[in-house]
Amino acid sequence: MDMAKPLPNYLVQRYHGWKATSYAENESWYRRLASDGQHPRAMIISCCDSRVHVTSIFGADQGEFFIHRNIANLVPPYQPDGQQHGTSAAVEYAVQALKVAHVIVLGHSSCGGVQGCLDMCQGNAPELDAKDSFVGRWMDILRPKYEVVADIEDPKEQARQLEKHAVMTSLENLMTFPFVAEQVKAGELTLHGLWHNIGEGGLECYSADKEMFRPV
Amino acid sequence: MDMAKPLPNYLVQRYHGWKATSYAENESWYRRLASDGQHPRAMIISCCDSRVHVTSIFGADQGEFFIHRNIANLVPPYQPDGQQHGTSAAVEYAVQALKVAHVIVLGHSSCGGVQGCLDMCQGNAPELDAKDSFVGRWMDILRPKYEVVADIEDPKEQARQLEKHAVMTSLENLMTFPFVAEQVKAGELTLHGLWHNIGEGGLECYSADKEMFRPV
Amino acid sequence: MDMAKPLPNYLVQRYHGWKATSYAENESWYRRLASDGQHPRAMIISCCDSRVHVTSIFGADQGEFFIHRNIANLVPPYQPDGQQHGTSAAVEYAVQALKVAHVIVLGHSSCGGVQGCLDMCQGNAPELDAKDSFVGRWMDILRPKYEVVADIEDPKEQARQLEKHAVMTSLENLMTFPFVAEQVKAGELTLHGLWHNIGEGGLECYSADKEMFRPV
Amino acid sequence: MDMAKPLPNYLVQRYHGWKATSYAENESWYRRLASDGQHPRAMIISCCDSRVHVTSIFGADQGEFFIHRNIANLVPPYQPDGQQHGTSAAVEYAVQALKVAHVIVLGHSSCGGVQGCLDMCQGNAPELDAKDSFVGRWMDILRPKYEVVADIEDPKEQARQLEKHAVMTSLENLMTFPFVAEQVKAGELTLHGLWHNIGEGGLECYSADKEMFRPV
Repeated sequence: MDMAKPLPNYLVQRYHGWKATSYAENESWYRRLASDGQHPRAMIISCCDSRVHVTSIFGADQGEFFIHRNIANLVPPYQPDGQQHGTSAAVEYAVQALKVAHVIVLGHSSCGGVQGCLDMCQGNAPELDAKDSFVGRWMDILRPKYEVVADIEDPKEQARQLEKHAVMTSLENLMTFPFVAEQVKAGELTLHGLWHNIGEGGLECYSADKEMFRPV
Repeated sequence: MDMAKPLPNYLVQRYHGWKATSYAENESWYRRLASDGQHPRAMIISCCDSRVHVTSIFGADQGEFFIHRNIANLVPPYQPDGQQHGTSAAVEYAVQALKVAHVIVLGHSSCGGVQGCLDMCQGNAPELDAKDSFVGRWMDILRPKYEVVADIEDPKEQARQLEKHAVMTSLENLMTFPFVAEQVKAGELTLHGLWHNIGEGGLECYSADKEMFRPV
Repeated sequence: MDMAKPLPNYLVQRYHGWKATSYAENESWYRRLASDGQHPRAMIISCCDSRVHVTSIFGADQGEFFIHRNIANLVPPYQPDGQQHGTSAAVEYAVQALKVAHVIVLGHSSCGGVQGCLDMCQGNAPELDAKDSFVGRWMDILRPKYEVVADIEDPKEQARQLEKHAVMTSLENLMTFPFVAEQVKAGELTLHGLWHNIGEGGLECYSADKEMFRPV
Repeated sequence: MDMAKPLPNYLVQRYHGWKATSYAENESWYRRLASDGQHPRAMIISCCDSRVHVTSIFGADQGEFFIHRNIANLVPPYQPDGQQHGTSAAVEYAVQALKVAHVIVLGHSSCGGVQGCLDMCQGNAPELDAKDSFVGRWMDILRPKYEVVADIEDPKEQARQLEKHAVMTSLENLMTFPFVAEQVKAGELTLHGLWHNIGEGGLECYSADKEMFRPV
């Protein structure tokens, strides 16, 4: 790989700062995590979006959360076809190997992936319809939900509703994994759906009773 | 989705704590991030492992890094077959839509996914060879590198070398994406390979000159 | 003490979160607790085990319970020999100075201390028999009860019974303290024995009538 | 034990409330904690005082902290004499069996045990000088520090300083345990001293550099 470059200097400096402070203060814990392995309580599936800081919001300690991040926090349906499914692999590892007790799907406002899905469904993003658009094909997971929000006139509200449907879709698809469904039914695993409002700092949780998201 | 449950109370409390402190202190920045969108300088591809806190190591601010996390920080080769490729979608979005200047692949010590790959290649994990093992099929991306480390006798050193090959494989595969290769050649994008030692707090960077990882 | 280190950052953040929410909302009560002193209704003696959250189970408010926690929730017999007896000091302070109305001994499932006692009595933990094993010597308090459970074949049931005997032993030893016995007889103090099943969320209370633990 | 009584009804009700809410929402986690055992990151040694809620202040999750609570959060010096030392047993179990990465000593304002020590040293509490006073003998651990604060005129400030000396004494005594000193020197265990102001909601951390407590 003759293309790899040295780390930008500002990151080298920050790393050395971390090493001299956070690492130094938590050295014993890092050593133990390294020798004893991880025992995270929960898996969090969130978006790659740079504005979503899962670990800040939940005051996370190193070792607490197994975190998978992809575009629009989507979980595809169970499809054991021998192909490469990175999200399914992460779910399998968390649930089967680590035996986490919770899988938390965390959606958020102003999600670029969800907006792309809307644009695509509304005919405004032909490039996303192309076979070679990875983002477009990935957002196909959410596509069937477009019709549920198609009639919402306010574009902002429409996007928001589709963002929440992305969370619900992931929860539904998680239940198509036999090992997830089995453990959920046995009371050994619980699923949670959240939607985070970046600008307002809000957090809403999907309530199965009310079939809606409500502030926590 | 009648299976979704409320958020565990300790997370609700921590969230409210975050809202009243970090959010309150940075409200104007969060609002601006929401209204102006994200402009991250770099994409980081790291592992889901709960012990790897990307944002801590680099003192990350909200909005700084577009972060994709999957098992063993792997990028598959470019394969525009119309199927769902979550990692490729994340790379495409970061490079094409967000125009990040850096893609950083961050591997780490004691990686469970890499260990699984080793076990599988050594015939000790038949369950990972099954067609329906998502983890096994995902680790196939790294499989061809096993022969490079097959003769290393010390199991810890062997795993460590394969962890570093996971980073190099991702860098190589990134270059198979036409839009990545093009921007790298045009000097608009740089790739970086890192390996993080969790217990020691170490950080090594792949040096193309020396063809090896060296402490930053 | 040149060995003391700063508090890990995640705890600093969580503390500030608590200060800005729980403390802020209850400030007047905290100030009053500080100025008027504590008037707890009950003392609880429970195990140090990280899985036993006394305050959760009983929805405890600040100022409600005087809580002593030690290995296996044991109270040693009354022994006023001028040596240091931390548990006896806690009982004396609760009953004599604070005049609590209840002393509740709370045992639990999967107790590591009780398991150690079993291992020691069965000859499987010679290190606990050593004079300098603090855990071993502390579990000597429970040792005489081993013979009562020695014939139980199922190891899980055996441990469970010994856990319950740990609670009963503490109740019996509490009655050897003259000031406890006196107040119990005068109807000014009541003793209660509980056993908590961590996994099932169960709670059983010792019934003097039936001479057994029964679900509350 | 014919003296044990049923649990007061208000606690039965609260327990059933907890079972139907917190337990129900976290059932999968409780089951996993029961089957896999505890892996707490830290041991906390705090006072029995009903006003000190360790788990609230630090947004604690079940399974996070191994908590020992005694009068005035004192650790006696290492004394492997074959007698019963409950606090030493708790320290041994946390450090040797559970391999916690941190031991945090948490003192607090308005500590009744520390006030008793002051009264005793000033000749105002002859009953605490009696051989059969468990509280008096327990506070002997702190007694040598009285001379350091003897000249402070303001009684409130004097108590506060002695409360902080209780924390420092415990840290010093912890270092007399060979297994603690060894792991601290090896970077596998870190010690922390805190003092909590109940009325103000304040938290101060002992700084070895400055040899004083400073707000976190």
